[in-house]
This record gives sequence, structure tokens and C-alpha cells, in this order.
Amino acid sequence: MKKLINAPADVVSESLLGVEAAHPELRVDHTNKVVLRADAPRPGKVGLVSGGGSGHEPLHGGFVGQGMLDAACCGEVFTSPVPDQILAATKGVDGGAGVQDSLYTVGRRGVGATVLVEKIAGAAAEQGRSLTEVADLARKVNGGARSMGMALTSCTVPQAGSPTFDLPEDEMELGIGIHGEPGRHRVPLAAAKEIAEMLVDPILEDHEFAGEGGVLAFVNGMGGTPLIELYLMYHEVHALLGKAGIPVARNLVGNYITSLDMAGCSVTLLKLDDELVRLWDAPVNTPALRWGT
Amino acid sequence: MKKLINAPADVVSESLLGVEAAHPELRVDHTNKVVLRADAPRPGKVGLVSGGGSGHEPLHGGFVGQGMLDAACCGEVFTSPVPDQILAATKGVDGGAGVQDSLYTVGRRGVGATVLVEKIAGAAAEQGRSLTEVADLARKVNGGARSMGMALTSCTVPQAGSPTFDLPEDEMELGIGIHGEPGRHRVPLAAAKEIAEMLVDPILEDHEFAGEGGVLAFVNGMGGTPLIELYLMYHEVHALLGKAGIPVARNLVGNYITSLDMAGCSVTLLKLDDELVRLWDAPVNTPALRWGT
Repeated sequence: MKKLINAPADVVSESLLGVEAAHPELRVDHTNKVVLRADAPRPGKVGLVSGGGSGHEPLHGGFVGQGMLDAACCGEVFTSPVPDQILAATKGVDGGAGVQDSLYTVGRRGVGATVLVEKIAGAAAEQGRSLTEVADLARKVNGGARSMGMALTSCTVPQAGSPTFDLPEDEMELGIGIHGEPGRHRVPLAAAKEIAEMLVDPILEDHEFAGEGGVLAFVNGMGGTPLIELYLMYHEVHALLGKAGIPVARNLVGNYITSLDMAGCSVTLLKLDDELVRLWDAPVNTPALRWGT
Repeated sequence: MKKLINAPADVVSESLLGVEAAHPELRVDHTNKVVLRADAPRPGKVGLVSGGGSGHEPLHGGFVGQGMLDAACCGEVFTSPVPDQILAATKGVDGGAGVQDSLYTVGRRGVGATVLVEKIAGAAAEQGRSLTEVADLARKVNGGARSMGMALTSCTVPQAGSPTFDLPEDEMELGIGIHGEPGRHRVPLAAAKEIAEMLVDPILEDHEFAGEGGVLAFVNGMGGTPLIELYLMYHEVHALLGKAGIPVARNLVGNYITSLDMAGCSVTLLKLDDELVRLWDAPVNTPALRWGT
């Protein structure tokens, strides 16, 4: 295992020291491993809390700030946060208008739409909407988005010290989760054009994305894949959507929900309407997503 | 080789198709492989052109936009752009106030300061300063910055198909360039705390960073290192600078000047004064660096 770490058990806590040092606009509760907006709680604003295992950075701590999350609970690597963390985060951001946990959903596992839920629900909360409205929007984004991911390599969890799974040099894993879960299929390594089809086709089969509002197309890197490849993949995805008659109204390309050092990517489509576009475009000021401020 | 590509020879041109599709605020000259601001040339503004081999994304194409570069010339992977590309870019951004190539320097190789030069010279050009002033600022940043990089693994160039160099599981390379050049030393793998010392100590020995204005501390990932490790490294670097009595006034943590899928990082320090802080803080709106707009 080759990593820029000290002791494997200290990775999360020491990384949070770096987050605190780098981002004076955030506050870090080191006891509970919670990242908060420095100005939380904001009176009258719905507090938006997210969280999950670490190792998916910038998700979720990198999305704390104006127009997105109020707090993120950082579990150990690939390990859910404990209730005490969520309680501390909730208390820390409770401005009297209620607190929404963006990750209440169960069922399918997320490899992309989480980022879109956090951005859009965060924009709604920032605009002063009610807890009910924010929760409804989160459900709407979750319901209108589909993702499919693939891995070229495994990741290596610091405390394990070796790759989570073996993937031969000439194979890839399709339909992965973000913790090295087995995918739907293990298939021969293919060209980017074919990989894009293997990701986009099942998404289009599973949900209706046609319509005037178009889609938000999100090509996400799993952590170990260079940006030059992600843009190449975005070109392929964009071309496929063009062929399918689906206009791309917004896009996002980069490493936003990762799986440590795994090489691979996920594609997420979200069906857009005017309301979602306005909330997507609304100002956001976080370490990992920032515009309009 | 496991990469999200089609034919190795098409990686750069196909990735630029993705850049064009993702960023309507940019224009891509596919013949010359040049990324330009869509609103170039801007009359009366010094045009700022950069470029270099591809494989270092987001450098340089990801830094084209308001407040930074006017154009970037994209060479083949790890291969300098040819004169025709630079000529095309220069013509494309010439607004009558002169055009500055930010990469005119020879001598030491850059593993970090380039990003800072492009941001600060770009801000000056955006403010309407003269070619002489912009060039002087670029020299000032270049002269006041020092970097040191390290690699845990080699990168794999698409057209080569195998790692550029072998690095045993228990060793790392110190003092690297961004193309897999041999470093200063090959040393046993060490903890993050010791690696931070090996990077920061030679920087502090080579230049005087003490003083009231403090420094900009930049921890840059080489492409294959997860953000959780970069923040951990930032914590170590920040702590070392604290011990040395050097205040950190600004920082940047992330993958900004990379070497394809190489794991590792570089540390760059830039001595700041009021002028440089104002230019660093000035609005920037590019795919990879964005604030204040």
C-alpha cells in the first residue's frame, strides 16, 4: 500500500485537521468528526446535514458551505457515521426551521445523484424554503436521476492495506458501488466509446429522459482516473445523448464522489425542468463546488 | 494499461471534444488544439497564452476563462505544443495590447508555481494592466515561489502503454518533474509527516519565506492521489510552516497540475505581499478555478 498517510487509523481525523486549516469558512468538530459552516446555525434556515463513510472526497465535507450543506458527518473510511455524529451535526445546524438529512433514502445505492441532491436541496434551503419543500425537492431529484458506474481497478482501504478486489488487467467491473461492491457484470476491457454505451444504455432503459427541459449530464471520476479521460468520456456520453435526442442543458465533469484511488467513472443523468435548473444555477460556495458568488 | 480511452493517438483530440461540449464559455480550435475564451480577443486587454504537453489536466485548458488565461495550447501527452499552435493561440487572443506567454521561463522545471503564475498574471491582465506589468508580475511570482514534488507511483502514458518507470512497493521518488523525470533521490516509503518534511525543508532552505505577508501554501495532487490524502498532507505542511514561524495567508489543495494517473503530491510556497494577495483573491471563472464571480 502506497499512500500519503501516517497511521491508517488516523487518516480521517488528520485529514479533517487539513480541512480546518485550509478552509476558515468551515468549522470542524473534531470530537464528532463533523464539518460545519462556520456561520451555523443560521436562524430561520432549514439545516441540511449529510454524511457517510470517508474515502469519497470531496463528498460530503467538500460540499459544506453557502448554497449546499450546513454540515457533513464523516464516518471512518467506507463506514457509516454513528448516531452521535448525526445528533451533533443536527444540533449544530438547527436554526429553528428543521433539519433535513439528505441521505434518508434506502434502496438503490448512490454513485452520483447524491451530489445533485445536495446541491439542489441546498439551494432551496438557502433560499429560505420550508423543510417540506426542501425534502420534496430532494425526493424529486432522487426520483429523476439515474446513475451507472464502472471500475477499471479496485481501491485500497488504508486499514486493509491491499486492494479490496482483484480485477485482471483485461477486465473491468460494471455497475459498481462506491465501496468496491461487486458490480452487475465483469466484462472484458473495452474502448471508451463502448464503455459509454454500457453506462448510458441501462440508464435510458430505466427512466424516461426525453423532454424539452433536457438533462443534467454528470461524468464523475472514481478518484484515480485523470481528468483528460473524464472529458473524453463526457464527449462520448454527450454524443450518445445527442443520438438519443436528449438535450444536455447542464453538465458536471470531475471527481466529486469517489472511491479512494479507484480508477473508473460513473455517469448520472438528471431530468431537468425550470425549477431544477434555477436551483442548480443558484450560487454555491463550497470547497469543491463554487459558482455565482 | 487500463484507461478510459479509445485509440491512444486520439486521447487529446477526443478529450478536447469533451471540453467543448462541457464548457460553452470556451471555444476549442480543434485543428490547432487550442482552448480559447469564447469572447477572445478582448480589445485592449493583454492576451495571456499558456500551454504545454497534455496529461497535466486541469493545467492549462482548465484555467482558460475570465481572470486567468485567454488561451491554452494543448500538446500531445507530455509533448510540447508546436509553434503553429502558439501562433494560432496568439492570433486568437490578440486584442491589441500585446500577448504574454506565461511559460517563457527556462531553467528549473515547474511542478506547481505555474498555476499561481497563471492566476496572478491573469488577474492583472483582466484588470487592464499593460503587457510590461503583467510580465513583471509573472516574473515576480516565478521568482518568489518554490516547489518540491514526490511520487509514490509512476504514471502510464497512453501511447507507451506501460508505466514510465518502476518504483518498488517500498520506495518513493523525491524531487520529481511532472513527466516522470527521475527525481533527486529515491528513498524508502515514509509516513506523511516525514514526507512533508522532505518536501518543505528544501523549499525553506532555498528561499526566504519569513515576513509579515506570509505565504500561499499549495498542496497539489499528481492525479492518482485521493483528496483525503492531500488534505492530510496539507495539515502536515501547515503544521511545519507554523513551527517555522511562517504564516499561511492563502492556500490551495487539490489536483491542479498533474501527471496523468501518478500517485504523489507537490508542495509549493509563494511569498505574498498585499499586491499578490489582491490579485490571487480577484474573481476567476474557469473550469478548474472559480471564485468571486
